[in-house]
Amino acid sequence: MDAETRIERSLANAVSRADGDGAPPGLASAMRYAVLGGGSRIRPRLCLAVARACGEDHPAVTDVAASAIELLHCASLVHDDLPCFDDAAMRRGRPSLHRAYGESLAVLTGDALIVLAYQSLALVADHAPRRVAPLLAILGRAAGMPRGIVAGQAWESESDIVLSDYQRAKTGALFAAATAAGAAAAGREAAEWHRLGDRLGEAYQVADDIRDVAADPGEIGKPVGRDRALGRPNAAGQLGLRGACERLDSLVAAALAAIPPCPGSAELRAHIRAQAGSLLPRALARPAA
Amino acid sequence: MDAETRIERSLANAVSRADGDGAPPGLASAMRYAVLGGGSRIRPRLCLAVARACGEDHPAVTDVAASAIELLHCASLVHDDLPCFDDAAMRRGRPSLHRAYGESLAVLTGDALIVLAYQSLALVADHAPRRVAPLLAILGRAAGMPRGIVAGQAWESESDIVLSDYQRAKTGALFAAATAAGAAAAGREAAEWHRLGDRLGEAYQVADDIRDVAADPGEIGKPVGRDRALGRPNAAGQLGLRGACERLDSLVAAALAAIPPCPGSAELRAHIRAQAGSLLPRALARPAA
Repeated sequence: MDAETRIERSLANAVSRADGDGAPPGLASAMRYAVLGGGSRIRPRLCLAVARACGEDHPAVTDVAASAIELLHCASLVHDDLPCFDDAAMRRGRPSLHRAYGESLAVLTGDALIVLAYQSLALVADHAPRRVAPLLAILGRAAGMPRGIVAGQAWESESDIVLSDYQRAKTGALFAAATAAGAAAAGREAAEWHRLGDRLGEAYQVADDIRDVAADPGEIGKPVGRDRALGRPNAAGQLGLRGACERLDSLVAAALAAIPPCPGSAELRAHIRAQAGSLLPRALARPAA
Repeated sequence: MDAETRIERSLANAVSRADGDGAPPGLASAMRYAVLGGGSRIRPRLCLAVARACGEDHPAVTDVAASAIELLHCASLVHDDLPCFDDAAMRRGRPSLHRAYGESLAVLTGDALIVLAYQSLALVADHAPRRVAPLLAILGRAAGMPRGIVAGQAWESESDIVLSDYQRAKTGALFAAATAAGAAAAGREAAEWHRLGDRLGEAYQVADDIRDVAADPGEIGKPVGRDRALGRPNAAGQLGLRGACERLDSLVAAALAAIPPCPGSAELRAHIRAQAGSLLPRALARPAA
């Protein structure tokens, strides 16, 4: 089964379990909207690619790890779009969740998706408890305080922002979790895989900054120019478009150099190159280096 | 060490870990405010009492299970108080979290506390993976969809509310988790302990309804008469004060009858009777039956 099918099936199973007997129908519907409405799935694809490179032997564990990371990502998008943060009207080419379902259900959808990430993990805990222990730590580190995505979002409420802490937490944390979780799901030591995820998270942040400056809104499913409008730092604003593209290239090269020795390193390099090539707006895209 | 000391120490340790290197200071402060600002700790006390009754052998596992349940409870209070839900001004005798820290940090505090509950569990996962597997399932069931506290709150957004599903999810779920987690932390089969928690959750809901009608605001640290003001169901409104007190007595009796056979059942009965006695407003309190 290909990676895309595995990821979509695992996510669909998770939201279906949430919509079990006794579920309030509005929240169940909102969770489907948040999770199944497209998305690049770049983090769970990375998780699967690392697990395969590490000689994956328990695909069910990889699948819940990858979908847990995507569920945490979806939760953060729903909460970040709320009126008290970005008040975003559009996401993935459709109304943002609070515009479609109201603010109350948007708060609860984020909460329920965070819990759902861990409920997915619980499904394999009896079967593979020694694999689940490191995954539990990886998810907490990526999502929570002091350096996960919740911390990243909270830096936006600080007057005295530590930019590197902000970006590493807001974007890098889930990429580091994707690579570490892929390794842990395959029974490998996770720690040495964080560095690859960190570099890819930085690269993704730069690419996101470039898209915010240079993409077509229809291409990325949300408005552009948000960073300038909201006074947020942007690499393309600071370095210029050409400088930001060069920075992206050097970060991808650093990521490739950070791949630990593993049986499937060649396929993993190819996966990362292909993903990096797809991050730029079409007008700027070049063949993968 | 007594139960109160164990619980407060475990909660203080959790919020201190959240405030680690690189943490955004505002969110770290808000988390302390949400967790360490008092609270009856009735759920973690119940968890510890059940673990002791079951012959507790890994106190560190019980402590993280009990504090995880309290952290989920604190998270739900912060989010339920938000303007898009109850818009509560006061909680535990102080300004509610969003009044003290703003709405953005209130959303993030709830999120971070949900994750912190699982981060606590991760601390003992390496040491006791076979105990952590059932605890992971218990926390997810209590917090998430389809029947946990998030589902309970979501029923308030439905026009066609299923009252029993609403109350069982909103209040009962964390009590059932407290008893089940106490048993699981002590290595016992958790399933047979849910029923005790369900009955205690119902009893707590009735007592809460009585307090909302008959308590002094200073005694409970929040305004009274909120159910009538917000159009929510209230047992004392439906049955009268006397009828609601009788209902409370019968639920406590049903709870005592639901205690599974265990080495410390006599002490557990005494704990439950004492807790039940403390739930009523002072003006209505009677000696424990």
